[in-house]
Amino acid sequence: MSLTITNIKTITTAPEGINQVIVKVETSEPELYGLGCATFTQRHQVVVTAIEKYLKPFLIGKDPQRIEDVWQTSMVSSYWRNGPVLNNAISGVDMALWDIKGKLADMPLYQLLGGKCRDAVPAYIHADAKSIDHALDLVEERKEAGWNNIRVQIGGYGGENPIMHKPVSSTPGVYYDPKSYMKTMLTAFEKLRVKFGDELDFSHDVHERLTPNQAMQFAKEMESFHLFFLEDVLPPEQVNWFDHIRSHTVTPLAQGELFNNPNEWIDIVSKRYIDYLRLHISQAGGITPVLKIIAFCDTFGVRTAWHGPGDLSPIGHAVNAHLGISSPNLGIQEWSCSIKENTYEVFPGTPIVKNGYIYLNDKPGIGVEIDEEAAAKYPCHNDLPQWTLARLPDGSAARP
Amino acid sequence: MSLTITNIKTITTAPEGINQVIVKVETSEPELYGLGCATFTQRHQVVVTAIEKYLKPFLIGKDPQRIEDVWQTSMVSSYWRNGPVLNNAISGVDMALWDIKGKLADMPLYQLLGGKCRDAVPAYIHADAKSIDHALDLVEERKEAGWNNIRVQIGGYGGENPIMHKPVSSTPGVYYDPKSYMKTMLTAFEKLRVKFGDELDFSHDVHERLTPNQAMQFAKEMESFHLFFLEDVLPPEQVNWFDHIRSHTVTPLAQGELFNNPNEWIDIVSKRYIDYLRLHISQAGGITPVLKIIAFCDTFGVRTAWHGPGDLSPIGHAVNAHLGISSPNLGIQEWSCSIKENTYEVFPGTPIVKNGYIYLNDKPGIGVEIDEEAAAKYPCHNDLPQWTLARLPDGSAARP
Amino acid sequence: MSLTITNIKTITTAPEGINQVIVKVETSEPELYGLGCATFTQRHQVVVTAIEKYLKPFLIGKDPQRIEDVWQTSMVSSYWRNGPVLNNAISGVDMALWDIKGKLADMPLYQLLGGKCRDAVPAYIHADAKSIDHALDLVEERKEAGWNNIRVQIGGYGGENPIMHKPVSSTPGVYYDPKSYMKTMLTAFEKLRVKFGDELDFSHDVHERLTPNQAMQFAKEMESFHLFFLEDVLPPEQVNWFDHIRSHTVTPLAQGELFNNPNEWIDIVSKRYIDYLRLHISQAGGITPVLKIIAFCDTFGVRTAWHGPGDLSPIGHAVNAHLGISSPNLGIQEWSCSIKENTYEVFPGTPIVKNGYIYLNDKPGIGVEIDEEAAAKYPCHNDLPQWTLARLPDGSAARP
Amino acid sequence: MSLTITNIKTITTAPEGINQVIVKVETSEPELYGLGCATFTQRHQVVVTAIEKYLKPFLIGKDPQRIEDVWQTSMVSSYWRNGPVLNNAISGVDMALWDIKGKLADMPLYQLLGGKCRDAVPAYIHADAKSIDHALDLVEERKEAGWNNIRVQIGGYGGENPIMHKPVSSTPGVYYDPKSYMKTMLTAFEKLRVKFGDELDFSHDVHERLTPNQAMQFAKEMESFHLFFLEDVLPPEQVNWFDHIRSHTVTPLAQGELFNNPNEWIDIVSKRYIDYLRLHISQAGGITPVLKIIAFCDTFGVRTAWHGPGDLSPIGHAVNAHLGISSPNLGIQEWSCSIKENTYEVFPGTPIVKNGYIYLNDKPGIGVEIDEEAAAKYPCHNDLPQWTLARLPDGSAARP
Repeated sequence: MSLTITNIKTITTAPEGINQVIVKVETSEPELYGLGCATFTQRHQVVVTAIEKYLKPFLIGKDPQRIEDVWQTSMVSSYWRNGPVLNNAISGVDMALWDIKGKLADMPLYQLLGGKCRDAVPAYIHADAKSIDHALDLVEERKEAGWNNIRVQIGGYGGENPIMHKPVSSTPGVYYDPKSYMKTMLTAFEKLRVKFGDELDFSHDVHERLTPNQAMQFAKEMESFHLFFLEDVLPPEQVNWFDHIRSHTVTPLAQGELFNNPNEWIDIVSKRYIDYLRLHISQAGGITPVLKIIAFCDTFGVRTAWHGPGDLSPIGHAVNAHLGISSPNLGIQEWSCSIKENTYEVFPGTPIVKNGYIYLNDKPGIGVEIDEEAAAKYPCHNDLPQWTLARLPDGSAARP
Repeated sequence: MSLTITNIKTITTAPEGINQVIVKVETSEPELYGLGCATFTQRHQVVVTAIEKYLKPFLIGKDPQRIEDVWQTSMVSSYWRNGPVLNNAISGVDMALWDIKGKLADMPLYQLLGGKCRDAVPAYIHADAKSIDHALDLVEERKEAGWNNIRVQIGGYGGENPIMHKPVSSTPGVYYDPKSYMKTMLTAFEKLRVKFGDELDFSHDVHERLTPNQAMQFAKEMESFHLFFLEDVLPPEQVNWFDHIRSHTVTPLAQGELFNNPNEWIDIVSKRYIDYLRLHISQAGGITPVLKIIAFCDTFGVRTAWHGPGDLSPIGHAVNAHLGISSPNLGIQEWSCSIKENTYEVFPGTPIVKNGYIYLNDKPGIGVEIDEEAAAKYPCHNDLPQWTLARLPDGSAARP
Repeated sequence: MSLTITNIKTITTAPEGINQVIVKVETSEPELYGLGCATFTQRHQVVVTAIEKYLKPFLIGKDPQRIEDVWQTSMVSSYWRNGPVLNNAISGVDMALWDIKGKLADMPLYQLLGGKCRDAVPAYIHADAKSIDHALDLVEERKEAGWNNIRVQIGGYGGENPIMHKPVSSTPGVYYDPKSYMKTMLTAFEKLRVKFGDELDFSHDVHERLTPNQAMQFAKEMESFHLFFLEDVLPPEQVNWFDHIRSHTVTPLAQGELFNNPNEWIDIVSKRYIDYLRLHISQAGGITPVLKIIAFCDTFGVRTAWHGPGDLSPIGHAVNAHLGISSPNLGIQEWSCSIKENTYEVFPGTPIVKNGYIYLNDKPGIGVEIDEEAAAKYPCHNDLPQWTLARLPDGSAARP
Repeated sequence: MSLTITNIKTITTAPEGINQVIVKVETSEPELYGLGCATFTQRHQVVVTAIEKYLKPFLIGKDPQRIEDVWQTSMVSSYWRNGPVLNNAISGVDMALWDIKGKLADMPLYQLLGGKCRDAVPAYIHADAKSIDHALDLVEERKEAGWNNIRVQIGGYGGENPIMHKPVSSTPGVYYDPKSYMKTMLTAFEKLRVKFGDELDFSHDVHERLTPNQAMQFAKEMESFHLFFLEDVLPPEQVNWFDHIRSHTVTPLAQGELFNNPNEWIDIVSKRYIDYLRLHISQAGGITPVLKIIAFCDTFGVRTAWHGPGDLSPIGHAVNAHLGISSPNLGIQEWSCSIKENTYEVFPGTPIVKNGYIYLNDKPGIGVEIDEEAAAKYPCHNDLPQWTLARLPDGSAARP
């Protein structure tokens, strides 16, 4: 079949206030197009420039069926490569090409990937509390809503944490005290286990806000609460510390939403230092590389738990679910609280959740549409992200 | 789409005298079936029993679209697993399910796997000579036929090798002298380079017939002839010797036709001890596991060179080519001299070769049919394989 | 002495409902024959085909006294090798040749292996309970029957486990929840220690049904109950995780009934990651290779605990005991509950058990006969094995 | 001193046809500003967007004297980080802040870095030839121009290479045959050594266009020509192959222009696998991180050889030289042939070269100005980069 890419469009929208970038690849076949997610929410305009100014002219005229070749040549088209901007741009196109492939085959994406190897995708939900008591309440709410795997955070690492030390610094920033943070979380999980017993699964995300030694201590002391996993205890630049963390605790370790370069994950997976690899699929470059990463992880007994909060689009969420439902080594899928009415309006076909499981529709390809008129009603904002600007009490930047 | 497996048939045939096992999976959709290769030529009746008596009743009624689930559950259905018999049986079904998937999608298999990332599959051909002079002639012939990558063997490691030491033993067997063998091959490649210069690519297959130390010496001394690769210098039980071989020579190393257990390849690939992984796809369990192995190899910069002589069926050859045309890390494909008229009669759609490249047709699925009437004209024989029974001059078995 | 193999017969029987495969090697000496066990119960017909169609014609005419040569040449006679089918076939012949060797020497097998280094073989027995309370009762029964080393299992990992989560899946299968399973077993061993103190030795078999991280956690939390050993916490494809498990707990680790390839055990023994190697002798290829494996384990201080439940024949049980009574590094022998009347009828000479010790008779060779008429009264069935088809609550296959 | 950043401007210019991105940071002190290089020439508009839309509003109002704090907070301001786009953006600001620091101190940058530890910076120049004969001529020219360290390339890896095999592919691309390339270069260096003896230093850049095994062979066979260094034999995703390359040859190894993530260099430097780290300073994130990388390399005896061809601005060249003149472990500095008249017009203060040494002026800060009017005469073009789109003869993408 002779088919070419005729146009590549970027569509930006923020139905729930979080900027999202969608890529639409149009083809020489009328009505045949694909949609992909290229959401790097903190720098959405940079990704748009990368696609509009470079990937679009590079790819127009190429065969959308040669997905692997498009991916390989796109990756080296800038000579310098990897990184969150270029990978997200490529992902937008890559997912769209897989969407097209599914439509050509008249099959949902998961069928192309070997078919379902489970009936639905088990997921966990966030409980972002302001205090320990609030956490206990929120978990109760989530439980009543049918969830039995819940990620619990308290106080945004920051201002609302009641036992935080007073900072000496006057440098503007969101202050954060690692010692208070660790103590708060240990107390919280103790109370959660007292209240809920062993019935629920809990996880927690450190967001790379500890020193390696604190990470070691925290992971070890969390062990008795039997977390489902402890996430991102190290920044990507320090992942070799997993060698030591692994040797001190059996707490299940998840890592990776910040990863965008194979050198960040090759060693820690092949040395079996982590239990769950948690990539943001679009930041890893899309479906094509991630299929290889799934296989690589499976070789070493490592499971997957793709990044899935509000900073990816429903197309990204659906891709997470297609990969999860067809992978033997799925661990679990993160599920955003933020999928609400507006989102279903802008993105018809967005996956739905029931009793802690994600369900895909059975439309060809990725199965999620975009209503461009509805999307236009929720334009992206240009506010800078603030939450990552954490500072320690002495005023130094806490590298998140 | 509701679809079930309604029948699984095994078809055995030997159009060129080499026993082959084909699996046909029939479905609840009239006319919709798939074909796979389960050829373990030396034990073909054992594979047939494994399929007919066990896999067939296990799988009838299951959904042929859930390929990953069928594979995972088949693998553990016997509790004890891996090994050439059970893996070949599972492969026959697995390839047939991918054939069905392609037919359902109305696409050649390579399109499901991400599309072509090259235009044709580069291949090498055998030159099995009786002597050094014969090798020079055969290579000339192959070159004139358009090949520029040729695997050169002399004397079957055995009786016709002119400089072999006289065995002391009277135990029946095919006698073989490693020292003569190594010397013959080194002389042969020296003469080949003198005659053909650097223009042609050459490889050679040791067939695991040396001690580890001999393998080290031989690989090192071959270095100056710039082989494309040196194949199977070690038996699968001794692959950790690659650590030492790698440290002594840059001769490209290929290994793996005997592999059937992940523990045979995980370490030598992830330690980058070999350059080409050469699995017999059906013995590794089919397309489903091999897609993961390709990705695993690519992670570590290792290339693929699937086993491809006369002891797989044209369906197996086509699968090799579908995988090769869609893999970024294809090295090269072995191509059998034995594909001749009878084969094209029994297996319409068998890939063709031109100027050293393999070309697939563009039919849906694997694209190779079987003419069951023609197949029946070439029944399998029950002769035992003899060539592997090599003995050293003292009468001991040379472990091939 | 000039002696040849004149015939090889396979005899299948299921005196207690579990299919068994016996090999009888007849010789040119009238009345001189040997018996071996080739039981791969889940695929017994496949093993029979491998013997009848290939090993039999390959070996007729060969000298049964050259056991090592027969083993080496049989192993490579199919070129592709290892795996449960071919190894079991070879084992049937190999044990029979050792049986002949013993008869020729007029000695029990253990005498050829260096003689007794203990008076009897210490063994453990199964207690397969439906609930924790049932386990407490069963252990009491076993204790009263003279056993002080007992393997305790509860609920078949499945449906009878009272606290299991409700599966979301409608895919047919035996559902199993790892979290419930681990909790049940930890509670059970706590109660067992409360009731029986430290007097009894307990072990438990995970049957490879946990993720590597769960295995780590479970092995660590089991530590306080001082198991005799914890068995098969990892599937054979993931044995390198023993590196991490070993670093977290001193719980004694046993592994290996699924092993059939040297690459599965070489590293974990030579790195001292496990304490007991638990091969199914016939699956490892018989007595000849296992004598070397015993020596290899002894080199590294690792002990043996051969697989010994109902899915091997009494000839296999006797071989286990001959190896155990003559090995300095025997750990313990697994002993099947299923040896009952029918078995002693079909296999005169089957070892007997008294007070937790196995006793061999002192007949030449392996010392177990087969009454072929009695055997024929208990023909093999052709049901497919079901117990391994465990599924997790999301419907995915739990790789056992 | 109270000082704030009041504005951040990006200036793009291409005085010699290569797109460059300059960042100008203005402060609350009239006339006090700094200039930095943010040149990722293949994606210059993407970097401009990253600066204009995100870094600029993030940094306005901050103290330009707190360079480390600005760098640390900028790096995490996008949460996702590293990669060529964001690092170049941050580098533009970082260099500008160091320029301001020098102006505040009224000192050339090198004085702030500890002062000169050599009198001038030794450099090498390119000789990009079309053929071996052309290479011999070009080297003669360079030698006569006073250079004694020359990087020799032939034929752009592509079409002009006389012995290249004919590609089978019709896919558009720049075709390249690794075997011909390696042979050409080996022959070229042999002739260069014959003609010029050992007097001149030569290097060569592979530009990541070989397989790991070819890289091993090539580095080993180059050994006898005593290269000053062999550059970028591996792509960044495969740098662990340096383990094997290092064990086969003492050819000096340089690597790194593509690096933008610490996980790419930490291991290969701390394991002493390479001899020269060759970062593109702006892609590593600017002066602040590179000062640490210099110290890290020095710890392990590794030298520096910063990337320095036409795709960085004269401000980048000057930064290279400031770092080089003050570092104890400078190896050598790459120097672009492309610095000609236009450049000196647009960038007054651009370093000059005499007899193979780079000389800085002694103005405060980095010491290079930009004439914005002159810059505007040479606007950037929007052509896509083409040279990296190499394909192998079978049509597959050669990953550069």
